[in-house]
This record gives sequence, C-alpha cells and structure tokens, in this order.
Amino acid sequence: MKEFSVLDDETSRRAGFAIVLVEPQLGENIGMVARAMANFGLADLRLVNPRDGWPSEKARAAASRADHVIDAVSLYDTVEEATADLNFVLATTARARDSFKPVRGPEEAAADLRRRAAEGQGTGILFGRERWGLNNHEVGLADEIVTFPVDPKFASLNIAQAVLLMSYAWQAAGRGGDLSPRFEAKLPEPATKDDLFRLFHHLEASLERAGYFFPEPKREVMTQNLRTMLTKANLSEPEVHTLRGVIKAFDYEAAQLRKKLGDAS
Amino acid sequence: MKEFSVLDDETSRRAGFAIVLVEPQLGENIGMVARAMANFGLADLRLVNPRDGWPSEKARAAASRADHVIDAVSLYDTVEEATADLNFVLATTARARDSFKPVRGPEEAAADLRRRAAEGQGTGILFGRERWGLNNHEVGLADEIVTFPVDPKFASLNIAQAVLLMSYAWQAAGRGGDLSPRFEAKLPEPATKDDLFRLFHHLEASLERAGYFFPEPKREVMTQNLRTMLTKANLSEPEVHTLRGVIKAFDYEAAQLRKKLGDAS
Repeated sequence: MKEFSVLDDETSRRAGFAIVLVEPQLGENIGMVARAMANFGLADLRLVNPRDGWPSEKARAAASRADHVIDAVSLYDTVEEATADLNFVLATTARARDSFKPVRGPEEAAADLRRRAAEGQGTGILFGRERWGLNNHEVGLADEIVTFPVDPKFASLNIAQAVLLMSYAWQAAGRGGDLSPRFEAKLPEPATKDDLFRLFHHLEASLERAGYFFPEPKREVMTQNLRTMLTKANLSEPEVHTLRGVIKAFDYEAAQLRKKLGDAS
Repeated sequence: MKEFSVLDDETSRRAGFAIVLVEPQLGENIGMVARAMANFGLADLRLVNPRDGWPSEKARAAASRADHVIDAVSLYDTVEEATADLNFVLATTARARDSFKPVRGPEEAAADLRRRAAEGQGTGILFGRERWGLNNHEVGLADEIVTFPVDPKFASLNIAQAVLLMSYAWQAAGRGGDLSPRFEAKLPEPATKDDLFRLFHHLEASLERAGYFFPEPKREVMTQNLRTMLTKANLSEPEVHTLRGVIKAFDYEAAQLRKKLGDAS
C-alpha cells in the first residue's frame, strides 16, 4: 500500500499532487488543510501570499501533528511561480464560469491525476481564497476545472473540506484498480507551466510590438483568449519550442527591417 | 437529481441516512457536521447527550446557514433510543477492535446504505466522542463497522471530516457510474477542416516571408510539426480566428516596415 505512506522526498512527492492555496486568509485553515492532506498521504503544500504571513503558529496548531506537511510548505509570490515545475494543473471553482475549460468531478479528476503522476508528470490543484475563490486570471492558468457535486441549494464547503474530499478521491482512485496502462499512442508529456508561461510572455511581448493589442480596452480579454487557447492545446516541451521558433522568426524579420530602416535614414 | 434536494419530511429523511453523534463535546463540531451533511443533501442529525446541552448557539454559527439541519436536530439520552426506529446501523471506528462485525470502507458502506434506503429501511451511522470515539457497548449495538482508509501513520480525521467523507461517499454511490459534474463547460465545437487548412496556409506563407523555413531540407518536417500541433490543439472556429489575427498582426507590422523602407529609399 505504497500510496498510504507519508511522502518524504522529491520522487515520492511526485507520486502525489501539489495542493496550492492562493492567498489563504486564516492560518487555522492552512493547518486544517495540512491535516486533511496527511490523512491521505499527501505532503506537497504550496502557499501563494498567505495573508497573515508564514510561518504561522495557528497553522501548526490546527495541523494537529501534521508537522511534516507544515515543515515542507513552500511559499510563492504568484500562482505562476507556484506551478512553474508542474505539468498539469486543475483549478477548483464553486460556480459555473464562462470558461471553455473542461470541468471534471472529483473522481474523474483524481483518476486523471493518478495516471499523469504514474507517467512522471508533476500535478497540482489550485484552491482559492476563503471568501471569493480564484480570480479569472488564476483559473486561466489551469488546464482544467474541478468542482464538487454538492447540493446546489446548499453549497458550502470550506477550503479544508474541499482539500479533504479531493485527497480522499485521489486515494480512492488508487484503490480503484483502474491504473492499467492505456493502450494509446504515447503522447508526449505536457511542458512545465514555467515553459508555458514563458511562451505567453514571449508571444505577448512580440504582439505588443506588432500592435496587436488594439483597442486598449480589449487587451485583457485578448490576452486571456490567447492564454486559454495555448493552455488548452496541452503543448509538449518540443511544441512550445516550435512555437517560440515561430515567434522568433517574426521577431527577427521585424528587427531586420527596422535595422535596414535605421541604416536607410 | 432527487438526491440533491434538501430533505424535509419523514419520507424523504428515509431517502438519506441518520447521522448519530454520541456525546459530542463541542457545539462547533455539531455545527460543522450539520454543514457537511447539508452539502450532500442529508438532514437527519441526532444527538445523544451533547456535553454542553442543546440548543447551541455555537453549533448554529458553525453550521454556516445549514439552519434546516440544526432546526431538525433530535435529542436522545441513549444510543438505543437514538437508533430505535432504524433498521440498519453502522458504527465508525478509527482502529481495529476485537469484534466479529464486518468492517466496510466508505464506498462499500455507502452503496449498501443506498440499497437499504431504496428498500425503505431506516439507516444510520454512529460517530463517537471527539476524544475517544465509541465505547464497546455502543459499537456492539451496530450491525457493521465502517472505517476510513487513512494513512495509518497519520490517522487524524475530526468528526466533521468523517461525516463529510461518509456523506460524500453516499452521494457518490447515488451517482453510480455517472461522474459528470453539476455544470459543464460549453466546449466549442472544432473548426471545420477548411478553416484549419486556411490557417495552415496563412501561417506558412507568413513564415515563408519571415525566413522561418531554414535550412531548406528541414522545410518538410518543420511544416509537418506545425500542422500536427495545430491539429492536435483541436481549435474551435473562434480560436482559428484568434490565431489568424495573431499572424495578421505580424503581417501588418512587416508590411508597414517594408512600406517605410520603400518610401525611404
């Protein structure tokens, strides 16, 4: 029962998935999340800008002896940094959004996370702020959405409960037995999020130069559309490389023309 | 989705199962249990000798608007009285005991509860005191034992978490094979191949102009790589439109620069 053991090094961290709490407000909740994770053998807890700072004695107290999770917490300034080394990221949302990302239930999401982890992919799930969840930019950074099948008349899971259910579903998927290799074409592993984010920035800088973001009020939605499309494409590292080559060709062309123009004037 | 609806009369209470808290110590925990239940459409909460009495303002506050569960709480002096009207009762335990009762996991137990409820049986689950659970007499009153598959090195579920997992398992058992979430992203349908082929040609013509296809012997494989990637991305018509806008921005930039260069020479 390997999946029950407490994970204690980088290799075994990859056997599980990362829990990313975005701007958590209360130390108690961070502690309860750590405790929930530990029950199901998860240990990779990442915090993006915890409101009350870190370390937190309230978190440690609420973790109820899940000290190995609290001690291994990593801190980040942005969701981009917190997910840079991961290949596949889910965002939790409580309500429907105008999103073209696939929406999964917990069991389905957990089975997919297990399959990806078995292939060596780094995976993670974003959980939003206690009061209002994730913003559109943050959801936009994820590959897919996971939501919990709660009563629509009373949907009130706190963050630790949501983490508990997802951790339980992950562990249950491991017991399910459906871990048999899929006889599919071996798809290349998705690029890390860091590679993808660098592609975003490269493309956006080149498009800025070319005058794409016009009119100005549409900049935000144009950027989101591009990012959503590139995320959805589930690009491998070689594909990211190819696309950056495409952008570089346009960069080079414009630079050469500008140089000639400078020489001519 | 009958099982999602809030249960409000004796008949529909029987569609779910009773949560029986034996000598719960903290009002907060009773409230968190009510909140956990409400998320999954359960409403029959029974208390045996709550330490701090009943009603409890702390319980109501912690229930976070699950008032219909708090208002319907029933009080008993003994486990025998609390389960008198039920046909089948499970006891939750965290550790192995000297017992000849069957021990079930949550999914198995939940499926059995659903089957019995469908036959009209009244069912319930006993949860013990925060500090030390159920005593042997109380476990002896149950038909079977249910336990949670937590990491034996870190087994630390509080009472509300245990109720949450059991409620979730019960709801999941009702969904059976249907793992679809409550809301679906409206995934746009893929663009027509004609749209896709026009995108190929546009991109390739622009890249030709920019000098991307170099060295010449690699032209074929570079073209194939681009087409494979764009096909794999399963682009919708609006996405094809967006990508053509991106290419047009680079086209326009180069054309403007060439025009200036022509004017300058």
